[in-house]
Amino acid sequence: MTATTAPRTRLSPAQRRTQLLDLGVSLLATRSLDQLTIDLLAEEAGISRGLLYHYFGTKHDFHEAVVRRAVDDLVEQTAPPAGGEPLDRLLASVAAYVDYVVANYEGYSSIVKAAQGGNDTLRQLYDDARTALTDRIFTADAQGDLVADTPAARLMVRGWAALSEELVLTWARDPAGVSREELLGALTAALPLLADLAR
Amino acid sequence: MTATTAPRTRLSPAQRRTQLLDLGVSLLATRSLDQLTIDLLAEEAGISRGLLYHYFGTKHDFHEAVVRRAVDDLVEQTAPPAGGEPLDRLLASVAAYVDYVVANYEGYSSIVKAAQGGNDTLRQLYDDARTALTDRIFTADAQGDLVADTPAARLMVRGWAALSEELVLTWARDPAGVSREELLGALTAALPLLADLAR
Repeated sequence: MTATTAPRTRLSPAQRRTQLLDLGVSLLATRSLDQLTIDLLAEEAGISRGLLYHYFGTKHDFHEAVVRRAVDDLVEQTAPPAGGEPLDRLLASVAAYVDYVVANYEGYSSIVKAAQGGNDTLRQLYDDARTALTDRIFTADAQGDLVADTPAARLMVRGWAALSEELVLTWARDPAGVSREELLGALTAALPLLADLAR
Repeated sequence: MTATTAPRTRLSPAQRRTQLLDLGVSLLATRSLDQLTIDLLAEEAGISRGLLYHYFGTKHDFHEAVVRRAVDDLVEQTAPPAGGEPLDRLLASVAAYVDYVVANYEGYSSIVKAAQGGNDTLRQLYDDARTALTDRIFTADAQGDLVADTPAARLMVRGWAALSEELVLTWARDPAGVSREELLGALTAALPLLADLAR
């Protein structure tokens, strides 16, 4: 033990739960939700299953907490930078989304699948995240430089989000000769083109 | 009974099964897959549940047969006309898709949900239909007037299909002031614009 080692302190239950959620989210990156079991988390955390049930209730509650945390991370990590040209800010946000999907492919694609398949709680978390991501486009672009804020444009931005998700998940499995830069360029350019169609 | 009534003939088992599938598909238009039960079909067809199990095996087999038939209908009904300008043919195909979704909203949206949620058989049927619909764009447009046939363009057409599905399902629930003609115009114009981004 060296002088720089932090003193070992007893974590509060809330801190311990947060730490376990961090671990759950990091395990989910390379696993599907189905593979992310209480047993696996217990083994990785070196604590008993009983204690995990104490923190998370049921397996369903555990998955809900992990997914809530994962989509919060996604929304946070893909926030556009505060300043800059609208198209550059959109590009930065799209780049962060692509990198997130690549880094968390197994978990992210299983969340999308579970949400679309009618697990109501996960669907709500997913819809909230989708709404946060698309509403942010109108907040980040308050002057309407890229997209005028009309009901038709909001409909089109939903379509663009579906296109982006499909393209990025497909590209992450098989890039088909498309480079990351080409993908980012196409997704970024697509939004104002599509929004113009909704005018 | 009048002279124009067709003589009552005994249907072959294959004809009877086809007739029951027709009824199943028409019931599905305004119902979700979950609501389309063997009991309902038996009642509507005026035959016993036992006989239906004879024709379709399990409820799962029944749903598979109905979905197979429904997606075949979708692919057939949205076939582009044989002649005409590429963009007009695309518009006709998109219009048929929008009208199909509106006329079969409950059943179609429940098929999409079941397929995306990981029912493997339904997912395969749905993926096959999606592939048939998107591959057809390259067959119908063999000269590449709208979309050059490259791996990047095939990726982009998948994205356009996801965008179209999301937009049409959302619009069918709430048009948000967007007319059918505006929707058709935007979806049709979007394909060559998006494909250009993949060049």
